[in-house]
Amino acid sequence: MKAEPSASQSRQLSLRLDAYLRAMRERHLAELVDFLSIPSVSALPAHAKDVRRAAQWLADALLQAGARQSEVLQTGGLPVVLADWPAPDANAPTVLVYGHFDVQPADPIDAWRSPPFSPTLRESRIYARGASDDKGNLLIPVRAAEALAAVGGGPPVNLVFLFEGEEEIGSPNLPRLLAEHRDRLQVDAVLSADGIMLDSTRPTIALGFKGLLSLELEVSCADRDLHSGLHGGLAPNAATALSQILASLVSPDGAVLVDGFYADAAGLTESDRELIQRAGFDGEAYKSATGVSGFWGEPGYAPLERNWFRPTLDVNGVWGGFQGPGTKTVIPARAGAKVTCRLAAGQRPLEIAELVRRHIAAHTPQPARAEIHVLGSPSRAFVIERENPTVEIVRDALRGAYGCDPLDVRVGASLPVAGMIEDALDTKTVMLGWSMLDENLHAPDEFLRLESFDIGTRVYADVFQRLAILRRAGAA
Amino acid sequence: MKAEPSASQSRQLSLRLDAYLRAMRERHLAELVDFLSIPSVSALPAHAKDVRRAAQWLADALLQAGARQSEVLQTGGLPVVLADWPAPDANAPTVLVYGHFDVQPADPIDAWRSPPFSPTLRESRIYARGASDDKGNLLIPVRAAEALAAVGGGPPVNLVFLFEGEEEIGSPNLPRLLAEHRDRLQVDAVLSADGIMLDSTRPTIALGFKGLLSLELEVSCADRDLHSGLHGGLAPNAATALSQILASLVSPDGAVLVDGFYADAAGLTESDRELIQRAGFDGEAYKSATGVSGFWGEPGYAPLERNWFRPTLDVNGVWGGFQGPGTKTVIPARAGAKVTCRLAAGQRPLEIAELVRRHIAAHTPQPARAEIHVLGSPSRAFVIERENPTVEIVRDALRGAYGCDPLDVRVGASLPVAGMIEDALDTKTVMLGWSMLDENLHAPDEFLRLESFDIGTRVYADVFQRLAILRRAGAA
Repeated sequence: MKAEPSASQSRQLSLRLDAYLRAMRERHLAELVDFLSIPSVSALPAHAKDVRRAAQWLADALLQAGARQSEVLQTGGLPVVLADWPAPDANAPTVLVYGHFDVQPADPIDAWRSPPFSPTLRESRIYARGASDDKGNLLIPVRAAEALAAVGGGPPVNLVFLFEGEEEIGSPNLPRLLAEHRDRLQVDAVLSADGIMLDSTRPTIALGFKGLLSLELEVSCADRDLHSGLHGGLAPNAATALSQILASLVSPDGAVLVDGFYADAAGLTESDRELIQRAGFDGEAYKSATGVSGFWGEPGYAPLERNWFRPTLDVNGVWGGFQGPGTKTVIPARAGAKVTCRLAAGQRPLEIAELVRRHIAAHTPQPARAEIHVLGSPSRAFVIERENPTVEIVRDALRGAYGCDPLDVRVGASLPVAGMIEDALDTKTVMLGWSMLDENLHAPDEFLRLESFDIGTRVYADVFQRLAILRRAGAA
Repeated sequence: MKAEPSASQSRQLSLRLDAYLRAMRERHLAELVDFLSIPSVSALPAHAKDVRRAAQWLADALLQAGARQSEVLQTGGLPVVLADWPAPDANAPTVLVYGHFDVQPADPIDAWRSPPFSPTLRESRIYARGASDDKGNLLIPVRAAEALAAVGGGPPVNLVFLFEGEEEIGSPNLPRLLAEHRDRLQVDAVLSADGIMLDSTRPTIALGFKGLLSLELEVSCADRDLHSGLHGGLAPNAATALSQILASLVSPDGAVLVDGFYADAAGLTESDRELIQRAGFDGEAYKSATGVSGFWGEPGYAPLERNWFRPTLDVNGVWGGFQGPGTKTVIPARAGAKVTCRLAAGQRPLEIAELVRRHIAAHTPQPARAEIHVLGSPSRAFVIERENPTVEIVRDALRGAYGCDPLDVRVGASLPVAGMIEDALDTKTVMLGWSMLDENLHAPDEFLRLESFDIGTRVYADVFQRLAILRRAGAA
């Protein structure tokens, strides 16, 4: 076995990496623009061919970067790209890197300053749907591996890249794919390039995500919309009934009223409160960044306590009846809503779905009819310990790159994939990505800071090197 | 003054009328087809020229039928056709006949069996937008006058025809036009050809309509839609807040909860309850015709009591956030709704608007912001007494034509025009039209029964004759 590289060897490698990345900067950017131009929207069946096109683009890019093998795997739905890039040292540990090349729909298109699939550079940012979530970010570890191969003879760890095309629709086919390729995916660490940073000056380590339960509610009252005069006082109103059902779910002050909803949600520990304390949430800055008219949610908890640790229930959309300009005096026959619950550790998604179903059955005003069904695949919350060895390595690499301690955070968003990977491969996923909270993820004008691309590539290269050393030290 | 015509004179006139109408049947039908081919949709600015074309067509048709004078009057919006057709007897009373030549939009076009502006005959019905509401119906009194002129030397009353082009958008310019032509419109009776019949076997007399107040509600919580995970527990939800506001307006069992909403609504009199008793509402037939899952509305009143006499509040449409297929996990920044109130006699529309505004201000969950504004021109309810002399005459004429007593009804729909005419001319309007409830008014496949055109023309001729006699008897 080789000895640990000396500090001067490390410094030299780092300088050569920097030089390589500077030299490749234009090419990497041109490739990112190419990749972002593919409208790989997984939620819209009309874009399935674009998701497949993005998969092929990525598989080709991995081979071109230097991966030994790269293939587009078919699933029951949209494809997965799986690539192997072994280290020269056969005894090196194996690291799985996860990301996704599908993107959210771009609606409302009119709200974009530049078209969502015509990537545009403005003020050292690249604007496009998927720039931050996650196409820009998933290329970072690929570029890191390519750079290490170019200047160091190969990646210091065996790399397995697993990039999927269904993350934005809940990764419905990932669990089966992981199970089928279980032997090939016996890895020593998992890194996800689908990770967030709170801001660009202080790096972030995400120690947990909430689970996600998506529901669709449909209310019906008649065969067709009816004239509100000729049928007023006779016919039940689906839009009114929908509102009454939705209003029964959450109190005006923000408490979820579904019986048993909070029962299994883990409470906040002393360590959780410490995390929040250290985060130093700036409410006024948040308000001015988002334009929210105030904070809202479960009474008895501070805003960040709710966002990080407590389950939430949000109406994502409502529809029914006439939505055009002016007046159309109808009693809507049908109305509907989408609802998502973000679940805390301890809550079982299908059990919560059943509680909501029972609540709605009990709160549907007669004689309206309501049906609720689960959309996609619900996911549980995911939590990783601060002391996890891969977390420690990522922390050290970030500290080295930024010159400050990374901030440990919990995230109110969901990462079903981390739970799926843990369930299938019995390994915790460490998030390492550069999506900033202000980069308009899932919204118009999504962008990625180009500096993140540069810093990220260096950090990933460092992490790969540290992971190799760690294993050797452990094996010594 | 002439004596009343004898029974045998009446019978002879009636036979000559029938013969004349039979002879003209083909020509009248061809003209109706021509009129219905003009897409005079008042709600769509692109069709303004078609509304003007329909006005000119109608002014010409009136002159051709025999009117002495017929003109297209400009308003601030779409035109009005005003025509005079004096009786040979200078002492005859004057009767104003109202109707409208604008029509509803034809959307959804795809749902029509034949194109909405290509009038098509099927099973003794003419299918076209406006066939029943109101172009077919407004030609009936014109044909009656023409027939009386052809066989009796002229109409027995001085006729003034007032046909407007903005009824389907709330007649915004009619009050001013009525005021400006007030002197010319000093009449002894008003008949509206924009009237309904419950079915084709039993004629109907409408003794009242509800008022209409249209409102739009807009809720906002942030500058943009926010990710439901990254912002869950932080940001207020406009769709949730909208639901809570709408749910606060009406209880699950159908009571309007706006403070003071019912205060000025006239209660049901013994005579009102008699009307309902005689109508013999068939709930099961109604359910199978509409597919409603049950009846719903203000507790303590029977369905028809609510529909005819009690004010209602209906949500006509709701929107907000993501409405597409699948899941988009956003917290909507904005959401909205359209709401209409059908007002009972005694309720003042702008006062009700103010009550709703106050209610919403008090029931908007913090920190959401809600705004409400009135759409179009609100209208009050209109009621006419069963004993009104013109009502009695119409009742007699209908009884004569159908061989049975007409059914007195109240209508849950609104007829702002009747209130406007009463306010401007101090005369009550009596509805006499043949729009049947099943003729798809405001919906695809609108049609008019051709038999209604025949019966209607005879009834109008009879009513004109009886109105002349009544006045003479009164003057004697």
